Amino acid sequence: MSRFFSEKYAALTPYTPGEQPTDNEYVKLNTNESPFPPSPKAIACAAEEAARLELYSDPTCRKLAERLASHLGLDFDEVLMTNGSDEILNFAFMAFCDRDHPAVFPDITYGFYPVFAELNSVPYAEIPLKADFTVDVNDYLGVGKTIFLANPNAPTGLALCRDDVEKIVKSNPNSVVVVDEAYVDFGGESCIGLIHQYDNLLVTQTFSKSRSMAGARLGFGAGCKELIRDLNTIKYSTNPYNVNRMTMAAGYGVLEDEGYTRENCAVIIENRAYTTDALRALGFTVLDSRANFVFAKADWIGGGDLYRALKDRGVLVRHFERERLKDYNRITIGSRSQMETLLTTIEAIREDLK
Amino acid sequence: MSRFFSEKYAALTPYTPGEQPTDNEYVKLNTNESPFPPSPKAIACAAEEAARLELYSDPTCRKLAERLASHLGLDFDEVLMTNGSDEILNFAFMAFCDRDHPAVFPDITYGFYPVFAELNSVPYAEIPLKADFTVDVNDYLGVGKTIFLANPNAPTGLALCRDDVEKIVKSNPNSVVVVDEAYVDFGGESCIGLIHQYDNLLVTQTFSKSRSMAGARLGFGAGCKELIRDLNTIKYSTNPYNVNRMTMAAGYGVLEDEGYTRENCAVIIENRAYTTDALRALGFTVLDSRANFVFAKADWIGGGDLYRALKDRGVLVRHFERERLKDYNRITIGSRSQMETLLTTIEAIREDLK
Repeated sequence: MSRFFSEKYAALTPYTPGEQPTDNEYVKLNTNESPFPPSPKAIACAAEEAARLELYSDPTCRKLAERLASHLGLDFDEVLMTNGSDEILNFAFMAFCDRDHPAVFPDITYGFYPVFAELNSVPYAEIPLKADFTVDVNDYLGVGKTIFLANPNAPTGLALCRDDVEKIVKSNPNSVVVVDEAYVDFGGESCIGLIHQYDNLLVTQTFSKSRSMAGARLGFGAGCKELIRDLNTIKYSTNPYNVNRMTMAAGYGVLEDEGYTRENCAVIIENRAYTTDALRALGFTVLDSRANFVFAKADWIGGGDLYRALKDRGVLVRHFERERLKDYNRITIGSRSQMETLLTTIEAIREDLK
Repeated sequence: MSRFFSEKYAALTPYTPGEQPTDNEYVKLNTNESPFPPSPKAIACAAEEAARLELYSDPTCRKLAERLASHLGLDFDEVLMTNGSDEILNFAFMAFCDRDHPAVFPDITYGFYPVFAELNSVPYAEIPLKADFTVDVNDYLGVGKTIFLANPNAPTGLALCRDDVEKIVKSNPNSVVVVDEAYVDFGGESCIGLIHQYDNLLVTQTFSKSRSMAGARLGFGAGCKELIRDLNTIKYSTNPYNVNRMTMAAGYGVLEDEGYTRENCAVIIENRAYTTDALRALGFTVLDSRANFVFAKADWIGGGDLYRALKDRGVLVRHFERERLKDYNRITIGSRSQMETLLTTIEAIREDLK
């Protein structure tokens, strides 16, 4: 750190993104990307927009936000588009947490929440997941803090049903509950339909996963108009032109191609079932995922050892060193052929150990 | 504001972006965009990348940052790419300002600086420009605060020479000096060459203006490795994948086409001289701009009246209501034909008043 760096960030430990190798040598199952290219409509819209970059993007993202709102059964001023869903999550930490309104989230969840809390000098508590990695709903009833829940959760893939999330939202009427639905399209139940009933509910989603647009950076928040207005105050004080023209166009394009998205999600769900069964047959414990990844540990090799053995053989998965996670790996569900490569590579690793 | 909004932002007044009409009815001279389309190489690179959006963008922006660093005669770890230069400016307010390190900038400058200061709870002082709208260098010598200087300045277009900026940097060895060079390519002197001499100098630039990429959102900071490392700590705690794949590709493409950029800048400089002369002939006071806009007031119509009369006739310029600025309008320098439309429209307005 330089001698100029503000002391308020002295203890800040940034988020560590998954490895992004720039060569194409790996079967890349480490950052929960889609194995499918973006929708042809998204590609065409973005490519067309590339010729109009000399003009600023619309800071209100009106065309895209209206299209999305109509898709979700909401009004334009109930959604806010952001530069990936990390941005809307940070905005939520900024807007709805402070020294008097601490944050709370599970001890095992998206690793960025504690970083956002530190960044914004927000006190936070981490509530341990149960031994089976599920969220105990009772832990969050009437907790009176700003709640962040990834649903489905990462890296476990486990999901709460909508009724359970609603219980939490209802029991904390004076605190915002942020439900991070990055992975909801792979079998979770979205809570977006509840935003008209609860003025303390903010739902965030991303175009990165089910819509094959991780590299375009597009996320959004959905909530009552007042919450969205607050988040817009933050946006217009941070980066009014936060979403670029090409990404807006791609987002519009993919929303015009919902069949493509639904079909891809169905394939991932099918490949997830196939991979889960095959891993269990290979001696793995696999959590019951509702996301585009599985969280799995073997009874014959440690998590770190498996991660390294797979990487040596050209398959990249995500390993976390933390105590409760270190026996596991988080494995993105890709195409059927990627899954077959994963499984045959695991079999080969097991053979080598015999 | 909702009942949940953090009190720390209660007084926050967001930045007001220039109008972005979504129809094409206006000759748009209000947000300092380029009248030229992006480089054909930028368009081609971005369009090609649109097909690869399913993978995250490289958080280090390595390929683009290396290309840019080589263009600037710097190393890769002396630059940081951001989602527009607003993002690097906000990162600088976060990293290098706090209650013990207040910010200082001219009273008339980029309107986002006070917003960033408020957003980050940074105390700040505004130093009045001289009566002729120039910066008095003496005001900034040994000031011992984090200094933000737009050079050329906005909305005046006036520039300090490099030697004057160096005096300021040299006399404040224990404070960071941020030189915001958004408009430098239109006749200013860049201070990037000084970053190896001064560990307290951060220079920011944008691809929005001279490179016709406002709608792509690409900016950067250049400084010594230690400053850039601090800014990366902020970036990786805020939004690691801040620049999307298409924008990175477009940025790489335009850097491969420097001749195009230089040619466009030359045309703008020529059109600026033409417009300045013509406005003066029409009874305007026009500041000596080094940017892609002019700041001008007429002796026969008020600034607000001219703004509205132009808008009624389909020409959009930028008017600021503030006391010292309200007689003026900031007029973007566009193509020769746009400038001719501006001038004939102003003549018609004057005729109507007679």
